[in-house]
Amino acid sequence: MVSTQIVLANRPKGMPVLTDFRFEDIELPVLSDGEVLVEGVYYSVDPYMRGRMNAAKSYAPPFEVDKPIIGGVVAKVLESKSLDFVAGDLVTGRLNWRKKDVVQEKLLKKIDASIAPPSYYLGILGMPGMTAYVGFIHIGKPKAGETVVVSGAAGAVGVIVGQLAKIKGCRVIGIAGSEEKIRLLKEEFGFDEAINYKTCPDLKKAIADLCPNGVDIYFDNVGGEISDAVINNINFHARIPLCGQIALYNSSVPPMGPRLQPMLLSRSVLMQGFIIFNYESLFPEAIKEMSQWIKAGKLKFTETVIQGFEHLPIALLGLFSGENTGKMLVKA
Amino acid sequence: MVSTQIVLANRPKGMPVLTDFRFEDIELPVLSDGEVLVEGVYYSVDPYMRGRMNAAKSYAPPFEVDKPIIGGVVAKVLESKSLDFVAGDLVTGRLNWRKKDVVQEKLLKKIDASIAPPSYYLGILGMPGMTAYVGFIHIGKPKAGETVVVSGAAGAVGVIVGQLAKIKGCRVIGIAGSEEKIRLLKEEFGFDEAINYKTCPDLKKAIADLCPNGVDIYFDNVGGEISDAVINNINFHARIPLCGQIALYNSSVPPMGPRLQPMLLSRSVLMQGFIIFNYESLFPEAIKEMSQWIKAGKLKFTETVIQGFEHLPIALLGLFSGENTGKMLVKA
Repeated sequence: MVSTQIVLANRPKGMPVLTDFRFEDIELPVLSDGEVLVEGVYYSVDPYMRGRMNAAKSYAPPFEVDKPIIGGVVAKVLESKSLDFVAGDLVTGRLNWRKKDVVQEKLLKKIDASIAPPSYYLGILGMPGMTAYVGFIHIGKPKAGETVVVSGAAGAVGVIVGQLAKIKGCRVIGIAGSEEKIRLLKEEFGFDEAINYKTCPDLKKAIADLCPNGVDIYFDNVGGEISDAVINNINFHARIPLCGQIALYNSSVPPMGPRLQPMLLSRSVLMQGFIIFNYESLFPEAIKEMSQWIKAGKLKFTETVIQGFEHLPIALLGLFSGENTGKMLVKA
Repeated sequence: MVSTQIVLANRPKGMPVLTDFRFEDIELPVLSDGEVLVEGVYYSVDPYMRGRMNAAKSYAPPFEVDKPIIGGVVAKVLESKSLDFVAGDLVTGRLNWRKKDVVQEKLLKKIDASIAPPSYYLGILGMPGMTAYVGFIHIGKPKAGETVVVSGAAGAVGVIVGQLAKIKGCRVIGIAGSEEKIRLLKEEFGFDEAINYKTCPDLKKAIADLCPNGVDIYFDNVGGEISDAVINNINFHARIPLCGQIALYNSSVPPMGPRLQPMLLSRSVLMQGFIIFNYESLFPEAIKEMSQWIKAGKLKFTETVIQGFEHLPIALLGLFSGENTGKMLVKA
């Protein structure tokens, strides 16, 4: 059977471009026992994938040049030689960017569309949701009445963190990059305040004005100068879950910035880099709680869906120019 | 009764100088009930005192201009109107820089010279010892076989951290600023290796060579470029207790450096600023364990003692040019 795949054509230096990807037609092998033929329905694009395009040592092994990109996928089972799946099942897994693929059964999990729409298993009930939950609840350790700032607030993780902060009784301020995002954060997702960093003349002062008691938790999705402005307002005993550094992912040399350790030291701040794949033991608790909050209407989610498998590379690039609100997905 | 005190004459900008201090003769009040007349024996000078010379918000309130400097002191009781102390007792407390002083009984603790020499209550059994213990054991969470790097290794805290690392079965590499310190670390304090950062042509490479499995705990006493070099070799799931940033204390504007968050994130590193005064509940455990290790000969200590109360300011300044090995003290 014929399929199409998207491979890494070469490792980008700095911002990736479309020619870093290549489309290829391939012939799939015949199904063996324990294997499943699937067809992709939704493909996830996520900021962390930029790191895997580099050769450097990181938490996930690098993508290989001339091999398919791998990411979160929701797929439909077309044919099964597995006892666990039947044709028509909806499944999710970390799969090759292929239109159709033959996959080992152990790489797949069935999804329950009665809890949430299938695409949510790449978002609020998938990696971004787990990331928001683990980073905010387990590393951030929120207490009612505390002040929370979220950068990249309109992204897939950010919109969840903001709502978790409200559920936990915190005041929450989001930072995002357009007036439309600011409006959504306040009107749809219940953020107390939101700042458009692209038009704000003095971000440090704006945060100081909105956080008169200082910032107790800074959930950092972006890094760079936005983070400098927040950390200048950080409180004693604050927690900074380091979730993303999207502002810096495309730098080929480490960018310079003000040294933050003196402030982290003098204010007894915790900064914790974390990778969601190390916290899998917390996922059942996270899914249970988040599902309840979704059903109770306390936790909403939003997606930016691009149509067409052929637009996967452009969707991934769009993350770095802030094209998305909420989870960015491609629908095949 | 007449005494002499040392006050903060003005707030230094950048590196403090002798004219930032002023000596004054004062008349002490008559003793009231609950008060004790003490005479200073040992005065502690510590890097954190530089922070208190600034007006900025920090963990300890700033010293006040025209008021005495306050620091750790071991003193002898000359006269007592307290039921807790008698003349001749040796006590310790955070006291004014005065030759003699009238002090509230609640500010003083008796010391037990049978456990360790009196000056040790400003060092290994005082603030530096508690700092090393809490930072290394409770924040660093060492596991046998891990690799530990300590900057400012020949300082009061550093020599203790290195020995605690050996007690816990770790490999430990110290960074210090003279050949004599390097020799001491290896020959007297049992460090596996030590690097002279002043003569090392490529610190990042030197650390990589000595830490082939990466750095699991970086106990940071200094900050700046030394820390950059260590953090470039940091391991997955490493811990960085931020104890001091002596390289940066005298900067009046925040210095620039490479942004570290991308590495902290991609390697799931914890960085924790900590202030020993927030961990007082751990002191009894720390004193008990450290006293046992001292008696068993597993934990040694060293001091640099400057003679003369009048040399207190110069001793404090000496910390920033690395004049001391181990704890810097002034003997009255």
